[in-house]
Amino acid sequence: MLPYKTLIAIDREARQPVYQQIANRFASLIREGVLKPGLLLPGSRVLALQLGLHRKTVVAAYDELVSQDWATALPRKGVMVATNLPDVKPRSFQAPASPYTAGPGFSFNRIPSVVTSRYDRLQPGQLIINDGFADMREAPLEAWMKESRALVRRPRYHQRLTYGSAMGSLHLRQQLVHYLTYTRGLSLSADNVMTTRGAQMAIYLTAAMLLKKGDYVIVGSPNYFYADLCFEQLGARLLRVPTDAEGIDVEAVGRLCRAHKVKMLYVIPHHHHPTTVTLSAERRMRLLDVIRTHRLAVLEDDYDYDYHYSSAPILPLASGDHGGNVIYVGSFTKLLGLSIRSGFLVAPAPFLEEMARLRKLMDLQGDNLPEETLAALLADGTIDRHLKKSNKLYHERRDQLTQLLQNRLGDKVRFTEPAGGMATWLTFHKRYPLTQVAVKAASMGLLMSNGEQYGHGTTSLNAIRFGFASLNNRELTKAVGILEKVLTQSAQRFDK
Amino acid sequence: MLPYKTLIAIDREARQPVYQQIANRFASLIREGVLKPGLLLPGSRVLALQLGLHRKTVVAAYDELVSQDWATALPRKGVMVATNLPDVKPRSFQAPASPYTAGPGFSFNRIPSVVTSRYDRLQPGQLIINDGFADMREAPLEAWMKESRALVRRPRYHQRLTYGSAMGSLHLRQQLVHYLTYTRGLSLSADNVMTTRGAQMAIYLTAAMLLKKGDYVIVGSPNYFYADLCFEQLGARLLRVPTDAEGIDVEAVGRLCRAHKVKMLYVIPHHHHPTTVTLSAERRMRLLDVIRTHRLAVLEDDYDYDYHYSSAPILPLASGDHGGNVIYVGSFTKLLGLSIRSGFLVAPAPFLEEMARLRKLMDLQGDNLPEETLAALLADGTIDRHLKKSNKLYHERRDQLTQLLQNRLGDKVRFTEPAGGMATWLTFHKRYPLTQVAVKAASMGLLMSNGEQYGHGTTSLNAIRFGFASLNNRELTKAVGILEKVLTQSAQRFDK
Repeated sequence: MLPYKTLIAIDREARQPVYQQIANRFASLIREGVLKPGLLLPGSRVLALQLGLHRKTVVAAYDELVSQDWATALPRKGVMVATNLPDVKPRSFQAPASPYTAGPGFSFNRIPSVVTSRYDRLQPGQLIINDGFADMREAPLEAWMKESRALVRRPRYHQRLTYGSAMGSLHLRQQLVHYLTYTRGLSLSADNVMTTRGAQMAIYLTAAMLLKKGDYVIVGSPNYFYADLCFEQLGARLLRVPTDAEGIDVEAVGRLCRAHKVKMLYVIPHHHHPTTVTLSAERRMRLLDVIRTHRLAVLEDDYDYDYHYSSAPILPLASGDHGGNVIYVGSFTKLLGLSIRSGFLVAPAPFLEEMARLRKLMDLQGDNLPEETLAALLADGTIDRHLKKSNKLYHERRDQLTQLLQNRLGDKVRFTEPAGGMATWLTFHKRYPLTQVAVKAASMGLLMSNGEQYGHGTTSLNAIRFGFASLNNRELTKAVGILEKVLTQSAQRFDK
Repeated sequence: MLPYKTLIAIDREARQPVYQQIANRFASLIREGVLKPGLLLPGSRVLALQLGLHRKTVVAAYDELVSQDWATALPRKGVMVATNLPDVKPRSFQAPASPYTAGPGFSFNRIPSVVTSRYDRLQPGQLIINDGFADMREAPLEAWMKESRALVRRPRYHQRLTYGSAMGSLHLRQQLVHYLTYTRGLSLSADNVMTTRGAQMAIYLTAAMLLKKGDYVIVGSPNYFYADLCFEQLGARLLRVPTDAEGIDVEAVGRLCRAHKVKMLYVIPHHHHPTTVTLSAERRMRLLDVIRTHRLAVLEDDYDYDYHYSSAPILPLASGDHGGNVIYVGSFTKLLGLSIRSGFLVAPAPFLEEMARLRKLMDLQGDNLPEETLAALLADGTIDRHLKKSNKLYHERRDQLTQLLQNRLGDKVRFTEPAGGMATWLTFHKRYPLTQVAVKAASMGLLMSNGEQYGHGTTSLNAIRFGFASLNNRELTKAVGILEKVLTQSAQRFDK
């Protein structure tokens, strides 16, 4: 008999039942060719004794093997490894001749890109200053899981035996109508809403629907780099307008519209990315004039509307008199702690109908389960409650960061407290080049961007977005403390 | 005092705790302007009496309201509606002047499309013949939910405070390497795998990376219509090759490659869509020759590999000697009962690196939680067990459908039993036009395609894919019974 005690290792701490562990291990041994087709397995009594288990556990494992077709039960003889297994054997992992180790034999297109600092997983004791994300530890994932579980257990959930609409779940779209009406004063119906994987897909879809190669697109300077890259990838020519404390220069937008046949304007009205400035109410009014006059298609990316501390949010362009020209984009991704990405897009119905066709070719549609879950959490007030609570929390964190920056970094940096959102735009004095600061900080356990990505399309800004929402009091203090140390040491080197 | 008993309706059967219901209702009344800023709410003792509740419940509700900033607690006076609420009020739902009711003021691109029959939700008693989906009732969603819940409860899950890679979760990609090695004999590493939202996104990404306007793409005739549309949308010119019982005509592929500068071949080796034929082993060998000779980029869409009944699957082209030219696409969407869409793509690493940039612009990346969940279910054998079990079940259903079609529909239809997959390609005699059959069947409670979408790019086929996997014995019998009735009645009309 084979040394089954050695071959079948059992982990009694594992979540998986012991009988399944045994069945899986047998399946692996069969697959690997250790147990050959036609081999008679030991009797359940014998194996139970060898493994120190109850006989019933071994019988259950054999039943599982038979139901999975790895083995056959022979009356009065026992259980035999199946003889008709598919002829798919694992190759050696050292196979020298993988066709994928060489490069591709074909040519392919090149895609514009920026280098972003990326950290997949923190080491214990490390801190990260991110671009402005929510605190995952606060995300309402327990409520999310509870709702999802309740949904899949409902019999009528299973009546949806088919693919749905590329516009997204009707239930979710109806909830979004309600949500956008009472939070943003939008006037719309479910035909005006499409759900997307996240705001980025909404941006891509809109751009792909509007742009042809060579079309002009107006963007801020600086601007959200993934939007810039997306428009460039689709062949657009970017026209940049300056951004100041009141947001993008609307007079400049008007001038460009008179000088060029401009196809689209991309605007971030709340907490412009990266600089966090908010487009003033006055400029909004003037921008609505420009939009109507030039029949300018506007992509309004309002990713940060739900987070406000210093004042109430200003209503989006989409709620104003824009003649059907504003395509409005938002997202729940941050609220859900990046676990589930979920965005939406508001636009005139005929435009969305055509866009749904493109969505279908790119992605068919969204996921049923998360869409229905989000709809339920919007309906029962969970999202609303969560937003209230996190606004309170992030407000405190913003204030704490402001104080820390003032007290500890003094005139080494420059910033304006943002009215809302999750990040402070922090510009470093040019004697502290961020490419060096970031390296030094990392060696001290603080991971941060070196600022390069924010300069895409403009000159180097020597600035980062300091995401404060995901760091608690202790972490903010520690992060600013490390920055203080780095800058002080650099200054000493500089002074020598 | 306001009639709170009428205003605050409580549902004791609801999942939501009573105190939250009360808090939400108060928040709504505040939002709607029924409770004005500055209004003093009734004392907790008084309200508890009116509503017939314990006083602690009302106190909890007031605490919730205060923590959400809807109200302020005044020492020794009670709880007051907040006076500093954001000035965002719901508009009337009858608002006549929505800028979205008019069409858009801007022009936009047109997207190629086909009309598909679509049924979002079945009425009780109705049956649907779908395109070939898994049985959602059998999907391992309980295991899925259990694993997801365990994941979000683990502290280290929250250490991923940042966006990850557009290639997908490394953990999932490692599991896919293992899975693809032992099920398909592929030889690859995690650098060769990208996760996608579903197979459709993998198709779109590949096509967008390879194609320029005017490029030639070879496809079968007929072919999966969403692939055709995707290539057309990207500006490709389609060259069609015939399909017979052994799959696409490989000689014809070779001839086209000699006559044109062909950029890409799209092939579905197992259970070609729509006709379900499998590309024979001999043609695969010859196709590998053609691929190497012409350095032809091949998009191998093997969406149905995991489901085989009559014989073992034939190894994919991707596991053969293709010189790095085969891009291999698969999916777990059907297995997961369409609740979560999850696909993958295998290709040479330098190609995937560039493709990750495009994915970033389209969609940033996948969802962390589902990707980690799928990785865990691959690792612990759940997916493997589920596939074994559903292969057994769908095998029985295929056999039952074959018998039903032979016994009940006789020479009114033509079909070949598929070797695997989830659908039988069913061609109706031309005296039964499917556009009429589908209408008649719907009136009898059987929803089915009228076959139009399968004819995209070819002549009308008067055929449908009869998805058998999602229907149990009773349902298959009922569906074929209705079809029998429809065809018999049509024949009588025809004979008159």
